[in-house]
Amino acid sequence: MKKRISWLLSVLLIAMSAAFAQAADPLPSWNDMASKKAIVAFVEKVTTPGSPDYVRPAERIATFDNEGTLWSEQPMYFQLFFAIDRVKALAPQHPEWKTREPFASVLKGDLKTALKGGEKALAQIFMATHAGMTTTEFENIVKDWVARARHPKTNRLYTGMVYQPMLELLAYLRSKFFKTYIVSGGGIEFMRPWTEAVYGIPPEQVVGSSIKTKFEMRDGKPVLVRLAELDFIDDKEGKPVGINAHIGRRPIAAFGNSDGDLQMLQWTMAGQGARFALLVHHTDGEREWAYDRDSHIGCLDKALDEANAKGWTVVDMKNDWKRIYPDQ
Amino acid sequence: MKKRISWLLSVLLIAMSAAFAQAADPLPSWNDMASKKAIVAFVEKVTTPGSPDYVRPAERIATFDNEGTLWSEQPMYFQLFFAIDRVKALAPQHPEWKTREPFASVLKGDLKTALKGGEKALAQIFMATHAGMTTTEFENIVKDWVARARHPKTNRLYTGMVYQPMLELLAYLRSKFFKTYIVSGGGIEFMRPWTEAVYGIPPEQVVGSSIKTKFEMRDGKPVLVRLAELDFIDDKEGKPVGINAHIGRRPIAAFGNSDGDLQMLQWTMAGQGARFALLVHHTDGEREWAYDRDSHIGCLDKALDEANAKGWTVVDMKNDWKRIYPDQ
Repeated sequence: MKKRISWLLSVLLIAMSAAFAQAADPLPSWNDMASKKAIVAFVEKVTTPGSPDYVRPAERIATFDNEGTLWSEQPMYFQLFFAIDRVKALAPQHPEWKTREPFASVLKGDLKTALKGGEKALAQIFMATHAGMTTTEFENIVKDWVARARHPKTNRLYTGMVYQPMLELLAYLRSKFFKTYIVSGGGIEFMRPWTEAVYGIPPEQVVGSSIKTKFEMRDGKPVLVRLAELDFIDDKEGKPVGINAHIGRRPIAAFGNSDGDLQMLQWTMAGQGARFALLVHHTDGEREWAYDRDSHIGCLDKALDEANAKGWTVVDMKNDWKRIYPDQ
Repeated sequence: MKKRISWLLSVLLIAMSAAFAQAADPLPSWNDMASKKAIVAFVEKVTTPGSPDYVRPAERIATFDNEGTLWSEQPMYFQLFFAIDRVKALAPQHPEWKTREPFASVLKGDLKTALKGGEKALAQIFMATHAGMTTTEFENIVKDWVARARHPKTNRLYTGMVYQPMLELLAYLRSKFFKTYIVSGGGIEFMRPWTEAVYGIPPEQVVGSSIKTKFEMRDGKPVLVRLAELDFIDDKEGKPVGINAHIGRRPIAAFGNSDGDLQMLQWTMAGQGARFALLVHHTDGEREWAYDRDSHIGCLDKALDEANAKGWTVVDMKNDWKRIYPDQ
């Protein structure tokens, strides 16, 4: 009985601290402007019991793109930095790479030439570095890289280049019993090893691009081997497909930053009841990067037009966000 | 302030009722025998703080096969009854089926002849009834069927043929902060429309076999169209692959009933720390069906040998379960 009472007391304490936390501003890194107001207004109306727009907790699904929405993506997707580092690490086991493109140019540090082969070259680099090992081995490789590798321009750890205002937004939504998902064009197994620690998003709430895996017995122990065979591309038209495959419910809120997110936002907004769509517009060339319609990475063109036409929320990073990265 | 206090009170009330519920037997339909004892012992040791086998809540993943583990599967998988009912419903739109196999025999009620074409015939029946519509249309078709169709032998709704002891087990695990998943060879979109109401398992925690879907704009509205193209078979070696793709963590407990579940159980047991594997053995020809090594549906042969060799828990339905179905 004593044990039960102390348990009840701790439940009460947790409940009280939650009640006090509610009083504080849940989005302190957001300036008090239209974007923040739109977010809070949406969350209030779908979570307030009795509201005509009330949504029960189980249906509160929010999906977030990763690259350019939760962390930076310039001058190229961080997963490509990872792949290049892996080519260098694996080179001793592949003497033939010295004379074979795209590897030869990667090893010389000439990425421009390496990527002249377009998608085929990119696929070769990715398969050579992402396939052939077990899922457990790959997880450890990613964990190791994420803990050490640094961005060439900012010298930060890549996981230090996540957006503080978006971390607050994720936590705010979860405090209101939303389930927060990543729906990214990036590799699902490249994200899962660190999303829980960095974003509070567990592996089962990460949707991404994938290669096939195969169940095998090795020395009497079951393993999953990563095959050099594309399984699914979770980008553009693929995002609603990935959402349906993994979640099986339509999100009520979606967050992106590029034309690659347009279909996810359209799919989200086409559901019944209150809905929310937001685009992060990269307008801060000083604290981060400024790019949109003409960028090769994170091109924001058609989605920006549609956001303007339909009144979706567009975050102006320079003016909406007090800071960009957690350490700024 | 008044509002906050009443909220705290309701939190306290919920906490108190949870505390009292703990005192009652969480598995009343299980006889007090080895299977029940093994389940409770495992759950206690992984959830008791300070236990050397303690597992934090986020890692408490439990996966359940569906057919033969959570609901019956005789004289054939219930999804095949659904497909046959759909062939009949769609026949007026397909006059050519009158003379084309396997449809002609299905329409004559001669399933034996219809299925003589083996897997090819089965695939034709499935694709003709599961593809071609949008995901929303298919969801409504399934919901409608599940609400009305009845099993030819028991005359019960199919969702009335779920196992009461397993419903209790699912609820017991969730009360201990396990996340319960279905990992089934059945169609993922065939299960999702009713698993939340019947099992308390939300759509995002259902893993199953799938066909491909395609994003399309129809009259300016986005839809996902179900294509007559196989995407993934979530059976045998496919189960660990499906678990990895959807969950991204290894379960600590897995529940099955046939050789189709063997690899899922092997994958689960190969992880570090305390693990639990259970097979439901269909031994009750009176209240349900009795079958194992020689059955075409739900064959339990190799998995039974491995369970015996490795000391996995094997449920003897006849002796372990006080009742089978909720209405018994």
